Amino acid sequence: MHDDGGRARLAEAAKSYCNWGKWGPEDEAGTVNYITADDVRNAAGLVRKGRVFSLSISYGDDGPQKGHLRRFNPMSFMLRDGDDVYSRDLAGTPQGIGAADDVLILAAQGATHWDALGHIFYDSKMWNGYDCRLVSSMGAERNDIANYRNRITGRAVLLDLPRHLGVDWCQPGEGINSDLLQACADGQGVEVRRGDIVLLRFGQIAMCRAQDGWGDYAGGDAPGLTFDTLGWIDEHQIGGLAVDTWGAEVRPNDLACVTQPWHRVAIPQMGLLVGEIFDFEELAVDCAEDGVYEMFFSANPLPVKGSVGGPINPTAVK
Amino acid sequence: MHDDGGRARLAEAAKSYCNWGKWGPEDEAGTVNYITADDVRNAAGLVRKGRVFSLSISYGDDGPQKGHLRRFNPMSFMLRDGDDVYSRDLAGTPQGIGAADDVLILAAQGATHWDALGHIFYDSKMWNGYDCRLVSSMGAERNDIANYRNRITGRAVLLDLPRHLGVDWCQPGEGINSDLLQACADGQGVEVRRGDIVLLRFGQIAMCRAQDGWGDYAGGDAPGLTFDTLGWIDEHQIGGLAVDTWGAEVRPNDLACVTQPWHRVAIPQMGLLVGEIFDFEELAVDCAEDGVYEMFFSANPLPVKGSVGGPINPTAVK
Amino acid sequence: MHDDGGRARLAEAAKSYCNWGKWGPEDEAGTVNYITADDVRNAAGLVRKGRVFSLSISYGDDGPQKGHLRRFNPMSFMLRDGDDVYSRDLAGTPQGIGAADDVLILAAQGATHWDALGHIFYDSKMWNGYDCRLVSSMGAERNDIANYRNRITGRAVLLDLPRHLGVDWCQPGEGINSDLLQACADGQGVEVRRGDIVLLRFGQIAMCRAQDGWGDYAGGDAPGLTFDTLGWIDEHQIGGLAVDTWGAEVRPNDLACVTQPWHRVAIPQMGLLVGEIFDFEELAVDCAEDGVYEMFFSANPLPVKGSVGGPINPTAVK
Amino acid sequence: MHDDGGRARLAEAAKSYCNWGKWGPEDEAGTVNYITADDVRNAAGLVRKGRVFSLSISYGDDGPQKGHLRRFNPMSFMLRDGDDVYSRDLAGTPQGIGAADDVLILAAQGATHWDALGHIFYDSKMWNGYDCRLVSSMGAERNDIANYRNRITGRAVLLDLPRHLGVDWCQPGEGINSDLLQACADGQGVEVRRGDIVLLRFGQIAMCRAQDGWGDYAGGDAPGLTFDTLGWIDEHQIGGLAVDTWGAEVRPNDLACVTQPWHRVAIPQMGLLVGEIFDFEELAVDCAEDGVYEMFFSANPLPVKGSVGGPINPTAVK
Repeated sequence: MHDDGGRARLAEAAKSYCNWGKWGPEDEAGTVNYITADDVRNAAGLVRKGRVFSLSISYGDDGPQKGHLRRFNPMSFMLRDGDDVYSRDLAGTPQGIGAADDVLILAAQGATHWDALGHIFYDSKMWNGYDCRLVSSMGAERNDIANYRNRITGRAVLLDLPRHLGVDWCQPGEGINSDLLQACADGQGVEVRRGDIVLLRFGQIAMCRAQDGWGDYAGGDAPGLTFDTLGWIDEHQIGGLAVDTWGAEVRPNDLACVTQPWHRVAIPQMGLLVGEIFDFEELAVDCAEDGVYEMFFSANPLPVKGSVGGPINPTAVK
Repeated sequence: MHDDGGRARLAEAAKSYCNWGKWGPEDEAGTVNYITADDVRNAAGLVRKGRVFSLSISYGDDGPQKGHLRRFNPMSFMLRDGDDVYSRDLAGTPQGIGAADDVLILAAQGATHWDALGHIFYDSKMWNGYDCRLVSSMGAERNDIANYRNRITGRAVLLDLPRHLGVDWCQPGEGINSDLLQACADGQGVEVRRGDIVLLRFGQIAMCRAQDGWGDYAGGDAPGLTFDTLGWIDEHQIGGLAVDTWGAEVRPNDLACVTQPWHRVAIPQMGLLVGEIFDFEELAVDCAEDGVYEMFFSANPLPVKGSVGGPINPTAVK
Repeated sequence: MHDDGGRARLAEAAKSYCNWGKWGPEDEAGTVNYITADDVRNAAGLVRKGRVFSLSISYGDDGPQKGHLRRFNPMSFMLRDGDDVYSRDLAGTPQGIGAADDVLILAAQGATHWDALGHIFYDSKMWNGYDCRLVSSMGAERNDIANYRNRITGRAVLLDLPRHLGVDWCQPGEGINSDLLQACADGQGVEVRRGDIVLLRFGQIAMCRAQDGWGDYAGGDAPGLTFDTLGWIDEHQIGGLAVDTWGAEVRPNDLACVTQPWHRVAIPQMGLLVGEIFDFEELAVDCAEDGVYEMFFSANPLPVKGSVGGPINPTAVK
Repeated sequence: MHDDGGRARLAEAAKSYCNWGKWGPEDEAGTVNYITADDVRNAAGLVRKGRVFSLSISYGDDGPQKGHLRRFNPMSFMLRDGDDVYSRDLAGTPQGIGAADDVLILAAQGATHWDALGHIFYDSKMWNGYDCRLVSSMGAERNDIANYRNRITGRAVLLDLPRHLGVDWCQPGEGINSDLLQACADGQGVEVRRGDIVLLRFGQIAMCRAQDGWGDYAGGDAPGLTFDTLGWIDEHQIGGLAVDTWGAEVRPNDLACVTQPWHRVAIPQMGLLVGEIFDFEELAVDCAEDGVYEMFFSANPLPVKGSVGGPINPTAVK
């Protein structure tokens, strides 16, 4: 058989898993449409302990970015600060009375974030068949992150793969396939349902913390999803998926024809909500302790007009 | 009687409503400590319809900032976009396949946001007695926004003042005092409880939309809280408070001795969580329709190390 | 005759004044190639008084930009400052000893600047026939501003049009044509030579200062060059041209078929160096006083890799 | 003798070399006041070949910064580009016709730059005795970079220390003292005069290019001036000084009492113009070839209001 680097398989998956038009020709939200009001209400019923988890890494110069794809760690500059207040009387206030303000500069995909549906293109199209040229230097006219402004609240399930596998973390280069996702869910005794946000812990942040810092976390080899998981995702009609790695799919990728092949189907064809650089460490310990892997989840991004990435502090409540 | 511009009243309030030490000498979270795990669990029980509301204004060049305090509207620049993908083959992908990324530049207090407890100083101190010099050009070593990373989830109540008063919006310069807050809650049949996030609708965003744009929304005259409401806030032991104006308190301020006098007590002395530039329009219509003014609320900010403001997309669920 | 909005005239001029290949197929510098080492040496001979003029407006929030084309005025944020030094001992230095640093954010065309030859496209091409797609979101691979890094030093002549015309300033909408340029030079007794940088004072900055601020300086109606001046420019083989307006050509433009038609020929076809938002006020007074309109000139831009605009502080020496 | 880490010597030098008041109580320009109109005119006479040298490193992600002092390499983002123009018709222009614009973000001291006189503080003062608190988060009210807007044009001399010493480059940690400066000038047959800009080549950029990249160029060990050179500088009444290292003085510093002790005297006390991260490689070859180490020099910074650093592309003409 001719080795086409997976090109035929990519094309076939792009066709098989295409959800264009499913939620109308004007839709810009994709699989979060699976989340219903009933799902939201039921998800609220999962709050039993009242414990709140932040799933975001720290935003600052301690982040993982090292320049790959020109992404950088968040930078923050003060417009006014306490030393000014201590030192001088300022406009409108005497010495000792005042305020601090600051400015943030972020790469939208630099820390914990959602990809917008305008983030990935395949065959010059993006989600729901929109022309990729609708995402220009002036921003995304379609499929920007603001479409998610009130759409990402519902039930989440954590699939803790390293704990399921009995290891500290999945190894860079280790592919997680559909069977393993299902086995993990089964082993944890949690059902993945339509509209769920699936939180996939590969353990890579645990690995970075145990080892020598972020290393090549941003863009290097990583554990992650194999291409075949698109079938499992499609079948389960999940609302979205988030991971503790930089790029969700296994790296090196299991299809060679293009960088990040899984993304080419998941985002522009399926319309899948994808989140990256999530920190599940604290949550995972709690789930292991109480055996409960389902929870209420809310992570609506800043509604930045035209942006294709959504910096977030995802919140899980058990 | 000598007119001191309210200086004595300010000093007295600063003393009366001081919560320093209440949650230990190391606390950096203030009144959100009132929110208990029980409160979170009970708040989840308020989700009856499964309807999710975003309480953020749009982030972009359509925002209210016009340079006051050097704040500016969010700016977004593309690192890669669909026109690049359409036009050329890029590193790692053939023409038509690719991705878009962007960069955001924000003033932390420029759009919908929380103030961090390191945002306001009084008598060279900030919340819990920390020296204001701990907030330098290098950022806030204490009381930064990251302290709220998993602390702002619970019950919220909306007090819709214009609807209570039978007007379209409160007028710029109109002070809302303790009695009116209580009357509004009573009139709406909702109880304000310990740990609540109180959402105060003055209607100023409605006014801007009905009139000719933002005008001097950012820093100009506005309806808002009178100085005496500090007593009501203290008495109710609320978890926090958010408003649909730029600055929460009535402008021109009702104490003349210093700019934004209410803030000088609320934030550094009480440790109050304060949110500004919230958009309650859609939520308020819903509350008026179903008569339910209590809800589940979650708005944990990006954990930006050292930052004193928290851009957010606050989420209410009914 | 059919009115095509000047389309035929534009196409003809684009052809007539095309300098592609004139300085070799790899050239990325255009008309500054007219400046020879002899010209530089001779220009130095024009320094008679030793008086140095800065031709830049102030860089800061007092600039002319109001959001047109998403350009903004320069912003500056402190990384460290004197209030920090006064207030605390910092890493490596005791209290009272320290340093200040800052960060600048600029729109490359926001204040006094050169256009790079990669700034303007016509018929999907840029200077020297390079494909416009070589200027992507990743920056300009060809014709970036760094090509000018040591090329903009030589002789300049000031043409002070309002003084020649006996008015305070040329009016918004007033077109300056070839005959007037020549008459001004003749009237001033200065010869425009091959390789010269021609400084064109329309007086619009004088008008803004006399009136109520910048108004619609950035993108509004303005005095400027008519389309026919391309012939005069071509004939004189000047090295470049700089103006005290936002956009060099008369606004509203004298050809209707496209925005800024003169630019479409001057930059991508001729390879002309064009500078905008120069401040000639102080220089013009001096020239009027001593009757000398020629001078040494140096304005090599920051060699920003991939950038298409060059913030500068142009320096004239008489 | 008691070892005070050089504190007494620092205090004594600060007193000995203090030029406060020398050019009036309002002066904010310091030693560039030594440059007279005659000096400028005479400097122009040094232009013999008409060859122009850019003394700036490239501005971009290939720069030396790695986060030290929160400085970073210049970043550039496109507001519009050629791929947009190729792909679509834009406002005001048909497909194929358009423009590119970009935005720059710079650390003012990140690449080739001047220090403003507001950059360094000693004993809570800065140049000419101004209180350091005049440089706050709102920028420098005194001694900002804009004061140099037309002051840095004149005669420069290159002192090429490695060539004088017969080595490829001076070693990290190697101190260059007054005697060596004088011997180098003498050996090169060039006189250092009042008002000169002295260009000091240590060869560190040559070392980085020959070795494995920038390494710890930004903030690490480096060759440089010893503390005693302050005497030589004071005696010669030079207009300013620029180097091809990150920090001008030898690192580790030869006085231990404070970081960068030479700076504490040179800038706040003397009012010395100091430039760093200059690239002399091309110029130095030319000087070695023709034996001429004096030249015309111009490097007036962008007049950024309130900024304490001046990104520049310094220009030498021989």
